[in-house]
Amino acid sequence: MAQRAANTGRTSGHPSNANSAATSINSLAVERDGRVRVVIEGVSPAVPGGGFAVKRVLGEPVEVEADIFADGHDRIAAVVRHRAVGSGTWNDSPMESLVNDRWGGRFTVLTEGPHEFCVQAWIDHFGTWRRDLKRRAEAKQNLAAEYPIGAALIDRAINAHPPSRVDLLRYAELLRGESNADRLEHALDERLASLMFQADERRFAAESEPTRVWVDRQRAQFSAWYELFPRSTGADAATHGTFRDVLGRLDGVAAMGFDVLYLPPIHPIGRQFRKGKNNTLNAGPEDVGSPWAIGGLEGGHDAIHPALGSVEDFRALVKAARERGMEIALDLALQCSPDHPYVIQHPEWFKHRPDGSIQYAENPPKKYQDIYPFEFECEQWQSLWNEILRVVLLWVERGVHIFRVDNPHTKPFALWEWLIAEVKRRDAGVLFLAEAFTRPKVMHRLAKVGFTQSYTYFSWRNSAAELREYFTELTATASVEYFRPSAWPNTPDILPEYLQHGGRPAFVVRAILASTLCASWGVYGPAFELMDHLAVAPGSEEYLDSEKYQIRAWETDRPDSLAPLITLLNRIRRENAALQQDRTLLFHACNNPAILAYSKTDGDDCIVVVANTDSYHVQWSSVDLDLAALGLAAELPYQMHDLLTGTKYRWQGRTNVVGLDPATSPAHVFRVRRHQRTEAQFEYFL
Amino acid sequence: MAQRAANTGRTSGHPSNANSAATSINSLAVERDGRVRVVIEGVSPAVPGGGFAVKRVLGEPVEVEADIFADGHDRIAAVVRHRAVGSGTWNDSPMESLVNDRWGGRFTVLTEGPHEFCVQAWIDHFGTWRRDLKRRAEAKQNLAAEYPIGAALIDRAINAHPPSRVDLLRYAELLRGESNADRLEHALDERLASLMFQADERRFAAESEPTRVWVDRQRAQFSAWYELFPRSTGADAATHGTFRDVLGRLDGVAAMGFDVLYLPPIHPIGRQFRKGKNNTLNAGPEDVGSPWAIGGLEGGHDAIHPALGSVEDFRALVKAARERGMEIALDLALQCSPDHPYVIQHPEWFKHRPDGSIQYAENPPKKYQDIYPFEFECEQWQSLWNEILRVVLLWVERGVHIFRVDNPHTKPFALWEWLIAEVKRRDAGVLFLAEAFTRPKVMHRLAKVGFTQSYTYFSWRNSAAELREYFTELTATASVEYFRPSAWPNTPDILPEYLQHGGRPAFVVRAILASTLCASWGVYGPAFELMDHLAVAPGSEEYLDSEKYQIRAWETDRPDSLAPLITLLNRIRRENAALQQDRTLLFHACNNPAILAYSKTDGDDCIVVVANTDSYHVQWSSVDLDLAALGLAAELPYQMHDLLTGTKYRWQGRTNVVGLDPATSPAHVFRVRRHQRTEAQFEYFL
Repeated sequence: MAQRAANTGRTSGHPSNANSAATSINSLAVERDGRVRVVIEGVSPAVPGGGFAVKRVLGEPVEVEADIFADGHDRIAAVVRHRAVGSGTWNDSPMESLVNDRWGGRFTVLTEGPHEFCVQAWIDHFGTWRRDLKRRAEAKQNLAAEYPIGAALIDRAINAHPPSRVDLLRYAELLRGESNADRLEHALDERLASLMFQADERRFAAESEPTRVWVDRQRAQFSAWYELFPRSTGADAATHGTFRDVLGRLDGVAAMGFDVLYLPPIHPIGRQFRKGKNNTLNAGPEDVGSPWAIGGLEGGHDAIHPALGSVEDFRALVKAARERGMEIALDLALQCSPDHPYVIQHPEWFKHRPDGSIQYAENPPKKYQDIYPFEFECEQWQSLWNEILRVVLLWVERGVHIFRVDNPHTKPFALWEWLIAEVKRRDAGVLFLAEAFTRPKVMHRLAKVGFTQSYTYFSWRNSAAELREYFTELTATASVEYFRPSAWPNTPDILPEYLQHGGRPAFVVRAILASTLCASWGVYGPAFELMDHLAVAPGSEEYLDSEKYQIRAWETDRPDSLAPLITLLNRIRRENAALQQDRTLLFHACNNPAILAYSKTDGDDCIVVVANTDSYHVQWSSVDLDLAALGLAAELPYQMHDLLTGTKYRWQGRTNVVGLDPATSPAHVFRVRRHQRTEAQFEYFL
Repeated sequence: MAQRAANTGRTSGHPSNANSAATSINSLAVERDGRVRVVIEGVSPAVPGGGFAVKRVLGEPVEVEADIFADGHDRIAAVVRHRAVGSGTWNDSPMESLVNDRWGGRFTVLTEGPHEFCVQAWIDHFGTWRRDLKRRAEAKQNLAAEYPIGAALIDRAINAHPPSRVDLLRYAELLRGESNADRLEHALDERLASLMFQADERRFAAESEPTRVWVDRQRAQFSAWYELFPRSTGADAATHGTFRDVLGRLDGVAAMGFDVLYLPPIHPIGRQFRKGKNNTLNAGPEDVGSPWAIGGLEGGHDAIHPALGSVEDFRALVKAARERGMEIALDLALQCSPDHPYVIQHPEWFKHRPDGSIQYAENPPKKYQDIYPFEFECEQWQSLWNEILRVVLLWVERGVHIFRVDNPHTKPFALWEWLIAEVKRRDAGVLFLAEAFTRPKVMHRLAKVGFTQSYTYFSWRNSAAELREYFTELTATASVEYFRPSAWPNTPDILPEYLQHGGRPAFVVRAILASTLCASWGVYGPAFELMDHLAVAPGSEEYLDSEKYQIRAWETDRPDSLAPLITLLNRIRRENAALQQDRTLLFHACNNPAILAYSKTDGDDCIVVVANTDSYHVQWSSVDLDLAALGLAAELPYQMHDLLTGTKYRWQGRTNVVGLDPATSPAHVFRVRRHQRTEAQFEYFL
């Protein structure tokens, strides 16, 4: 931990020579005050590697810890200093010694935007004197010589902190008094200790380098997303849906309890090399193309596909969503079709082949001739960045405060760090979800540079062991300080094998897992609630007749729809604070490897989920709860209230047994009602 | 990991506006080149918290690793850049991709003193083109359009690296040639790849912040210490020994194989409040006092106790030791007796009580009136620091290149960081051993700020489980990068309970453990080899009739002396490189908790120690060796050659059984001879 002296100004510079010693040493290379004796190391929370902000939401506490120690045996005092960046004054929260030189303190973040904190610690000379006085008194030593030392410390504090002058003067007088018994009492007075802590001039204090804290609104951490292709909301598969049609769907989506409605790109779509149905190379004139092939004669990233409606229609949609407690999230896909206006206006932003043509996207030997990537190493990279910022701010102005960023891992990290900072500097409430299904370190770097939320490997973690390992990694490590996971059972690009073959039970359990493992989750609908499970080919995760390339008509009122389950899950999430964060996720042992048990707690609210990851067979398992972590006593019964079925069970002790039939109830979502004092009370309560 | 662009100079500053966009964005707050796309994180080795140097000895390799990745799918090239600090030019060692975006490289340190390294990485455009060309060729695509791209990359490299001009020009020509088959062969030529790596201009390279490496001479890591009170080397307990008497002991100490002879303070000893025998308060006129009560009328830290001899005698001792392959280590105890010249000459370096007296050392309610500590928070701290530096350099000039520092944890960390740096700046070969038996984080901080070696908790870790846990912590964590442990079975302050009651077997097993667990070990003799085990009081770790307060006469030629065992252990250490470092220490499972098994390896040299920590009973145990770690094949026998007894055992497979009788052989120190190809060869070899 880099560290600096808080008061270096006072005594820096080159010291005079030691006049005592005939020596060849002519100067001391001391750059800081050598009297800063306290060391501060290992400050947490922190983003590994340093330099990046840890993330919190409004009202969340920041539990700060640090190793703090000094030479010798003097007492140390320490505080966490915190402030909103730019606010000038620091606020101090006291820290206390925990164990093994570890100290802890906390503060709560109450405004959105950038905050910072540091740890400050100094030798507590008065506290040391007081502690030693107590020990001397206990050993019945003569204390007469000690009081003047304490009085002198008080004198010094008076000069450092005039507001306590009157009180402290009185104590100094008392300590200089006659009566030994009285003096001891005054010297050890708690009020004096408190005044002296206030008045301490914190001489030679050490201070850790500031740690940045980014504070988001609540939705950054707790959100339920619904992805919908607007063009598939028309009367039938032959009719291009419009924003007005989406308006008609809002009540249904809101009723399911979603609070973010995410739309794939709504911009004009290219014609050259347009993809046909099921990603075929030869599109017919009726084919609508992929919304991610952005840009046509009608405009680029700042334009709206004419078939969807106008800017005014879009604004109306944003407004209607807001009235239903929802936000519209837009896709931000930084790539162009060959028809994008940039290709003519800004050829300098693309890579050119020796024959003068623009380089299309490739992953050799695969070619994607319908997509031109930007060349971020071009000479004019700065004007490109500025244009991207302009586009994002334009949509912010049109009411979009959440962006789902397409493949951010194929654009420079530095771009995202800058772009997100620039946007948030103007509007701290704008959120970014990173759609980077790639290697773990790349995904984590994107979160570090500023993405609010991140898609996860959840879609492919199906077994209990896989889920336990992965979510432990995401929530029980420093990852939790900056990487906010979002769990999606499906996306337009991912129809996992598990859903292709597991039938309705697979969809049910994946919805339960996603919505309770992760404070943020999402589905691509109506494909999800209607259990669309047909892949375009064996071994493929692509949907058959994917909406990426064609309009689909969905029978949203089908009686077997999972909408009621989803509605219930989102209601349970809203009613239980425990499910609105990921920090307290804890897995519990099960003796059947098909069964996964985990809990989330927030104060009194405690949810335990037990799920059967086998979508074919009934599975029985013992569940071995970590009672201490859940605040449960081993000797008293507790109530397990299944919020999915309403059934209440009475459990006792660590180990209880569950049986889960995928056909009827593949999971329990229990609200735990903790033990009461007496057995009689419990009976009454049950 | 903080990171900077290697080439920021080229393109920094404010960019021009995006002229395409009518926008309110007037300037870009980009402080670095946004085209630096590579990210470098998690560079190792590193000292946790950063800023401090990792430690190596001459000729040791530095295995560097880092997470290195970029956006997209381009190939990356990376090197470790390293140099002696101040030497100007960097040396490059190539890095290669390991797994999961982790890269590795290595270099070897060949000169003493400060070194530094950083990781540099950049997008390898030619490598990317070459990889893609291969894939395209495998997919039988038309490559005609690709060759000019490769040729253009070669053209650019020629400008960046003129030495390769002739060769590269030829390749560029060949790639612009006619024959497709030939062109492919030339394009994929390994030599071209190598030339292009050499010539790469490393555009937009990223570079990690430099990591410092302190390179010591070998003895910093591999040393055997013998502590001796010079005054106890006289004819009898009534005669004060001299440096000349110590001379007479040198051959004996050297014969035991020690290479550091450490002397407690050799300075004049105070008279005021002098301690009597067994630390009593009333010393008689014949009492010699504690050598740590430094300073008298005869002088202070720069003087020699007149009864020991003169500066010339001391120089003669240093010289004689060197002739026997040994060094003299001095004690550096920064404290004064009330008679120290500083008390008169520099009262400003001490703390004054209100009555004007100087504050003696205290740990209330205990008082140490024979010791005045320095007041490191005094106004004149700089002259105090300078004087300490002067004293140390004076002894360096008198031939002392190793200091054992007494209680460094009661003096400021900043002092040590500065002092050690100042001394090593003048003489990189000066080593410092920290005698800080205190809390773990304090001990580790002292190692971080520069101490070469550190005393450890070894003295109190007696059970197999304790030793396994503690030495795993010291050698299998980042601790190994900066904290060099030294294991001492006893010191003048520590006669552990285990030695008080365990008899000869306890001394034997502790010597074997200390000398093989730790590349540096030491004993306080002759108390150790003569098995002095009487404590001053029950429950105390202080020796009865401690040499700290009186002269002792030792019968060094006693027939039961452990000198032969120690001689053998030090010989085994010298003959086995595996025992000269701690980095490869590995513990192996035993089914008897009294038995400890561990190995150290260095290339072909492989030592396995199996020790019985129960000094009373015969113990049998299975030993479950990690064969893969030892380079042993499961299906072939291997030879276990006990270097203590000469006995050779034939083992096979993971699990073998040992029985250890504390009375005769409390431990095996095996040299492992690895399996030969065939059974017949093994028989022959055995």
